[in-house]
Amino acid sequence: MRAVDLIRKKRDCGELSRQEIEFLVSGYTRGEIPDYQMAAWLMAVWIRGMNRSELAALTEVMLHSGEVLDHSAIPGKKVDKHSTGGVGDKTSLILAPIVAAGGLTVPMISGRGLGHTGGTLDKLEAIPGFNVNLSLAEFRRVLGECGMGLIGQTAEIAPADKRIYALRDVTSTVENIGLICASIMSKKLAEGIDALVLDVKTGSGAFMKKEEDSVRLAEVMVETGQRMGKKVAALITDMNQPLGRMAGHSNEVIESVEVLKGGGPADLRELSLDLSAWMFYLGERTPSVEEGRRVAETMIATGQALEKLRQGIRLQGGDEGVIDEPQRLPQARFHARVPSSSGGYITGTNCEQFGIALAMLGGGREKKEDKIDHGVGLEFHKRIGDRVEKAEPLATIHYNNDARLAEAKALIAGNYFISDSRPKEKPPLVHRILGA
Amino acid sequence: MRAVDLIRKKRDCGELSRQEIEFLVSGYTRGEIPDYQMAAWLMAVWIRGMNRSELAALTEVMLHSGEVLDHSAIPGKKVDKHSTGGVGDKTSLILAPIVAAGGLTVPMISGRGLGHTGGTLDKLEAIPGFNVNLSLAEFRRVLGECGMGLIGQTAEIAPADKRIYALRDVTSTVENIGLICASIMSKKLAEGIDALVLDVKTGSGAFMKKEEDSVRLAEVMVETGQRMGKKVAALITDMNQPLGRMAGHSNEVIESVEVLKGGGPADLRELSLDLSAWMFYLGERTPSVEEGRRVAETMIATGQALEKLRQGIRLQGGDEGVIDEPQRLPQARFHARVPSSSGGYITGTNCEQFGIALAMLGGGREKKEDKIDHGVGLEFHKRIGDRVEKAEPLATIHYNNDARLAEAKALIAGNYFISDSRPKEKPPLVHRILGA
Repeated sequence: MRAVDLIRKKRDCGELSRQEIEFLVSGYTRGEIPDYQMAAWLMAVWIRGMNRSELAALTEVMLHSGEVLDHSAIPGKKVDKHSTGGVGDKTSLILAPIVAAGGLTVPMISGRGLGHTGGTLDKLEAIPGFNVNLSLAEFRRVLGECGMGLIGQTAEIAPADKRIYALRDVTSTVENIGLICASIMSKKLAEGIDALVLDVKTGSGAFMKKEEDSVRLAEVMVETGQRMGKKVAALITDMNQPLGRMAGHSNEVIESVEVLKGGGPADLRELSLDLSAWMFYLGERTPSVEEGRRVAETMIATGQALEKLRQGIRLQGGDEGVIDEPQRLPQARFHARVPSSSGGYITGTNCEQFGIALAMLGGGREKKEDKIDHGVGLEFHKRIGDRVEKAEPLATIHYNNDARLAEAKALIAGNYFISDSRPKEKPPLVHRILGA
Repeated sequence: MRAVDLIRKKRDCGELSRQEIEFLVSGYTRGEIPDYQMAAWLMAVWIRGMNRSELAALTEVMLHSGEVLDHSAIPGKKVDKHSTGGVGDKTSLILAPIVAAGGLTVPMISGRGLGHTGGTLDKLEAIPGFNVNLSLAEFRRVLGECGMGLIGQTAEIAPADKRIYALRDVTSTVENIGLICASIMSKKLAEGIDALVLDVKTGSGAFMKKEEDSVRLAEVMVETGQRMGKKVAALITDMNQPLGRMAGHSNEVIESVEVLKGGGPADLRELSLDLSAWMFYLGERTPSVEEGRRVAETMIATGQALEKLRQGIRLQGGDEGVIDEPQRLPQARFHARVPSSSGGYITGTNCEQFGIALAMLGGGREKKEDKIDHGVGLEFHKRIGDRVEKAEPLATIHYNNDARLAEAKALIAGNYFISDSRPKEKPPLVHRILGA
């Protein structure tokens, strides 16, 4: 078998066998197939696509390129959630303690933020001392002790994905449903889970702006996971505006704690309960999603979820004091308001631009090497459907460095769409549910 | 400007500007853009294509990536021929002396053989002492002295093409009309010529098996050359069977000398005269192609072309004695006949396979690193339309090593198509003429 022939085959719209995909991916991971051949193949795949069995093969080969965790020593079902990412999307910090408190195990391997989206690992690192780089042995110990663990992709987990993703990033082969699916599912299935809830974002702040694209991605992910014997469901959820009121790392930890204390903004609370409910249901903790939701609500109401978060932070070396004293999290020194240039109703936002403004201020990464300022953040005062008066603040910027403040302000103000007439409808929180 | 954005643009069917193509190609040639980004871009180009202005820009940027020769110190027009390659295609060795003897200058930069096709440089190297690696200064001196020079692509000539071609070869991005055109034309225009005759092969032994593909390639090459102010014509010529009777390096030198002595097989002689005629016409040596053909015939009949070859060999360090004593060329020690398994009429051949059989025996390269045995060759006894009896030899193999002889024999015998009825027509030598 020669890489050059397999590149040609995909270029000419052929279907690759499992053996052929294994040859390419394993050879690349071992360093025997050079970057340039993988790059040509990825571009051919991007343009020509993969069918379902090629996709399943790619996912499996990537999954088995590294260790697949085995948590059979821990009793009960293991379940996780994956979100395709957006602005203010902090549900992992809320779900993991709710579901762990409810009796399931949540072995969550998360990513970092890039571009307009935030990453769970970065948010956790706003908590002083929190260590996301546990060894797999430490991860297992934490999981066994408190039922939740939140770490980054280690060298042992899906190394093929790590190498391929880095190459996709510099060869414009990222935004392809098959490649995205294989990347996500190979990592998630390596966690050793029984069930997975997918939160596939759709709208102006999501990678997939159009609902049909989000649905297609959700479909292939659900099918790929189910083919591999996992219980999988996908919620297509709205990202036409930020989730909750807060974006930025300390800010999002604070807002997550608020939800676990029974408060927080309604949209974030609702979505967190919905996703938790599905996790309880797919993890066979409850006989129905509705029942799962009641358990989730109980975990918040009784304070058990909050206690679980406290325990999780402690076990991963973090300062659990942030839960009661949020000022222990990194803070921005300055606040600036973003006034509305006109009065009217908010009819929509170009939500991606808010994430870009945040990164511009140091609260996210424009380039992979960028360091994050955890104290920098955005606070959104208006949601779609709200009335705003001229000069009334749309948002508040929490910043430390004003070098690009004016640019960020303009970007935020310019990406709220304001009209004289009230929008007929607000976007639903959950657009659709697939699978299960 | 970022390479990743230009890759995306082509991936998404966009048109790249001249500046953008220059950024990519120059950056790649300077080593600032890595192989993997170029590979992804080449695959996007392969699949999405380029329009005429992108192609012209690519050709020009590749041309100007190195030195463009200036032969203005040598009086008169400079003209060359380029063939897309086939089996037994040895016309360069015949044309160059005819046209130089006729008073034009032929600065020919040729390539090596790979796969089923032979290369002019390799054939010349069958001549003991012949040096194809002249410096550009030596090349100019030889050209000035005898009007013809035959060398390989130096480091100074179109270095972008050299790098890009090597990458295309290992990323399955070779067979694309735009990329082929840019590669050929950038090298040929760097020769500092006024006019170019293209011999675009079509049929089972050509890269382009279908006439429409050959015509498309010819069209874009003619247009690209003309856009750059050159006189260009293309002859679409037949490659459904070997050209002449001989393939292999020493064999082809011998057969070329036979034509220059006034003999040789009819098809090779005819095509050499046709191509020479066009070179004389485009080089403004004659007012018409017909007149050009008469000059070519005269150059053979008077022995001036043969003398020119002698001079050319001498000036490039070769043993001119091979002209009168062909046994001074490397010879194969053994001969083996390839008998026909049935009687009937030859209706066609899968000519590419003959080239592959030749390479298999050491008379060509299967891989770039392979060394060529110049003495190995094939002699074809039958042409399309000929009658063959059962067990009568179709071809004779000249070999030194019998390790793969049986395989080569079977490959040759199996790729003559034999039928009871005589084929209604033989393929024409020249299918079409474009441009001029």
